[in-house]
Order: sequence, then C-alpha cells, then structure tokens
Amino acid sequence: MKWCRFQNGKKVSYGIIEGTRVIQVNGSPFTRYARTGNVHSLRSVKLLVPVIPPTFYAAGINYPEHVTWAARMRGQEPNLPKKADVGYRANNALIAHEEPIIVPKDATREVQYEGELVAVIGKKCKSVSEAEALDYVLGFTIGNDVSERTWQRGDRTLWRAKNTDTFKPMGPWIVTGLDPDDLHVKITLSGRVVGEYDVRTALFGVRTYISEMSRYLTLYPGDVVWMGTEGATENMKDGDVCEIEVSDIGVLRNRVVWQR
Amino acid sequence: MKWCRFQNGKKVSYGIIEGTRVIQVNGSPFTRYARTGNVHSLRSVKLLVPVIPPTFYAAGINYPEHVTWAARMRGQEPNLPKKADVGYRANNALIAHEEPIIVPKDATREVQYEGELVAVIGKKCKSVSEAEALDYVLGFTIGNDVSERTWQRGDRTLWRAKNTDTFKPMGPWIVTGLDPDDLHVKITLSGRVVGEYDVRTALFGVRTYISEMSRYLTLYPGDVVWMGTEGATENMKDGDVCEIEVSDIGVLRNRVVWQR
Repeated sequence: MKWCRFQNGKKVSYGIIEGTRVIQVNGSPFTRYARTGNVHSLRSVKLLVPVIPPTFYAAGINYPEHVTWAARMRGQEPNLPKKADVGYRANNALIAHEEPIIVPKDATREVQYEGELVAVIGKKCKSVSEAEALDYVLGFTIGNDVSERTWQRGDRTLWRAKNTDTFKPMGPWIVTGLDPDDLHVKITLSGRVVGEYDVRTALFGVRTYISEMSRYLTLYPGDVVWMGTEGATENMKDGDVCEIEVSDIGVLRNRVVWQR
Repeated sequence: MKWCRFQNGKKVSYGIIEGTRVIQVNGSPFTRYARTGNVHSLRSVKLLVPVIPPTFYAAGINYPEHVTWAARMRGQEPNLPKKADVGYRANNALIAHEEPIIVPKDATREVQYEGELVAVIGKKCKSVSEAEALDYVLGFTIGNDVSERTWQRGDRTLWRAKNTDTFKPMGPWIVTGLDPDDLHVKITLSGRVVGEYDVRTALFGVRTYISEMSRYLTLYPGDVVWMGTEGATENMKDGDVCEIEVSDIGVLRNRVVWQR
C-alpha cells in the first residue's frame, strides 16, 4: 500500500496511491481513515511531505564506509559506533519531493546529499523486541540528509549544518509491507550515479534501532527514523538535481538552488 | 498574561489564569482565541505541558560556571562556546508540572536536574534582528533538563541521557510581557536551595539565540527554546522533589521516582 499526503486546491489530505490515481481519504494512516469518492490523477495533485513527525530521529553515522570516509575527511581514525545511539533532526527543514533545496548565501561549496531510507512509525510503542519492532512501523519513505560540511565540522551542534530550512527533503510517499533489509538505495546527481548501497549493510538495522530506542523512550505514530547513508558524498552545485531512489519505494527528487 | 493548557474531564483546552481562576478559551494563544464562559478554579484542573512544540530547541551549555563545571567533570579544560549554536530535545520526554520524573532501572545514580528558562515562540519568524526578536516570543515558561551524566559521557548522542521518557518537565504555564534579562532562577531539591542565578549572566541571551537561529531556520508558533542552566548540579535520589522557580513566572515542581 502506498500512502501520500497531498494538497488539492487549499485542502490537505492523505491519499492512497493506486497506479496513477490518488484515492482521497478522510482521516490518516496514523489514526483511522475511510476512502472517499474523490479520486485524483497523481500528476494533478501537489505531493507534500508525507508526515510531519512529532519527533524526528536520525541514526546519523550507521554505515561502515561512510564512517571511514567521514573520519578521514576530519583527519581522524575511523571509529565504528558500538551501539545504536540515535540523533535528531528538525521539522523546519522538511521539504517535499520536487521542492527546491535552497542554500544560503554564506554556505561554503561543501553542501552535500545523503540518501537514506526512512522508517515511519505507525503505532505507539515502548520496550519492544527486535522481532516485533516492524509491527510498529507503518512503512518506509526516502530522505535526503543535506549537510553543509564546513558548518558540520565547525559548529558545536548540527543545527545549521543539517537543519537549515529546506535541508531535509522527505518523500515522495510511504510504502507499507516492505522488509527494509531487502531494499537498495541509489543516489544520482544530475543523472550521474554517485552512490549505491544495500540497506542490509547498515551497522544497525531498523529493528535494532527501534528496539533499542524503545527501551528508554516511547515512539509515537508519525515519528520518523532516518537510517543514515553509506559511502562518500559529493558537493552539489547550483542547478544540480539530486535523486534518491529506493527499490520498491520510488524516487525523491530535488533541485539545488543557491541564493545569490 | 498567564497562559495554561489544561485538562478538565476529557477535554483539553488553553486557559487564561487570573488569580486562582482559569478562564477557558476556544482556540489557542498561537492562533486565535476567544474567552468562554467556562471558568474553573486553578486547583481543580489538571495542568498539562503548556505547549507541544513543533521543534524543541535547547541552548545546551550557555552559562560560564556550568561550562567550567561540566568540563572539569570530564577532566577537560573549560572551553566557552563562541557562538549561539543550538541543540535539540525531544517531545516524548515532556511531562507537566507535578508529574513524576521516572528513572529507568539501569540508570546510574548520576541523574541530575538543570533548571532553565524557556522561551516560547508566538509568531513565525525568519531573519529577525536582536532588537525585534522578543516580538516573536509569546512568553516564558520553566524547564528542567533532567540528565543522566553517565549516559551523557558515554553515548554518541544525548538521546537517552536527556530524552528518556519523563526527563523533560516543562511548565507550569507561560507568562507574557517579561524581559528575560530581569529574571532570576532558583533551584531547590527537597527544600534545599542547590542553585541560583540571574538569566542575564548567560553567554548568549534569548534575543541573540533567536536572531542567530532565524538566519538559517524558520521558527514557528509553539517552538520552544530552553536557555541552559548555570552552576554545578547534583544527583537526585528516589523521592526527591525538584523545584525550579523563576521570578515573575512561578514554580515547576516534579518528584523523582526510581523504577525498581
């Protein structure tokens, strides 16, 4: 099942995508919903960020080659994390599929993509085992954890490096019923493949993160967990189009616009 | 003006506190509101967290003596931050005035309070000057940034050290029309004063934080910015009552309960 959140005229609704059609629903996949008789063509509606999360979690460094690459860039020895400690991102930075990533004037050239799988929590959970963790996931979507590397190295926190307005593209929709360990991520920059990896090569998988987090905190419907990226990343120039493709989900596409 | 969010029976509403009475409103201070004829005694209603923030910001280390104390605890030289880089906390951890702080079984003894002033954003803002920053603040409330210091030192992020469920008491209400630099914070643990400071001694004030943050990000109505604490902090034992008092606002009171 494929869930989207969309705008049609002034009205914002959730919808179920079937082929090229969107069936508008009353309610949401996080509460209750009922299909309506309103059916739109997918092309005619504006897709929105598929959920505004109550809490926006991010695994951060969670793939071995990315950890190694990031450490070398800082002139340090790579140090693989030994447990699934989760971080945070911020809702102000969220944009939808096809919306522009707007880079502030004072950013350096080192504005880079990070293509990631995103788990969307469907049901409240606390203290769940790895075996039952996916029962609490509604489905999966795609994220681009855009990062300004100079700010990332120099600031005390990741606030503007990762959470400048428009730095968190997420979408285009949420797909249910997937096993994350079957998925493959491919990142292209203006048509050129710049990264590719299997989700199963993560240091800690979705089941581990959810189970570990839920030992201390309650996850709520709509919370998202961005699962981290693999490999080296490159700078994005003005006008570049970044696409993150995840098998069985789709493509998240955003153009980069540098403010003058 | 004194705003609260409260529950009466099953209904959750915003209210205006006048003396010992709560005037129930329709709407909220962040949108539009209208006073209703429903008036309750303040004692008879259950106060809730005064706002669930879209994004939950925290200044983190923002007072000189606290920075020095925290660095010495880690065996490092104190290093005062040179700019107002903001961090994040998480909504799962929020609890209201008079609700218990519940410490998980596997926490160490080093569970400590941090008494803080909290700025509540009232209007959407981007790129505002320090001079106009307070125009975008609805008012101020009180926060207790409860922290498990062993986890804070050992984990890669602050996720469970600071965001375990119940580790973020906030309230009891929001007071408008205050100048933060006039305010005084006093922290007591089971009746003993354990910390006291003037908000104006912060490295970076509310105006600076909001102005700096708004250069890169949009602040939204209901966002909160916790302003950090001053001084050393102590362990809280099972049964301790921690009170954070801020002049012209009130007292945020929470009991500590250790899970067995």
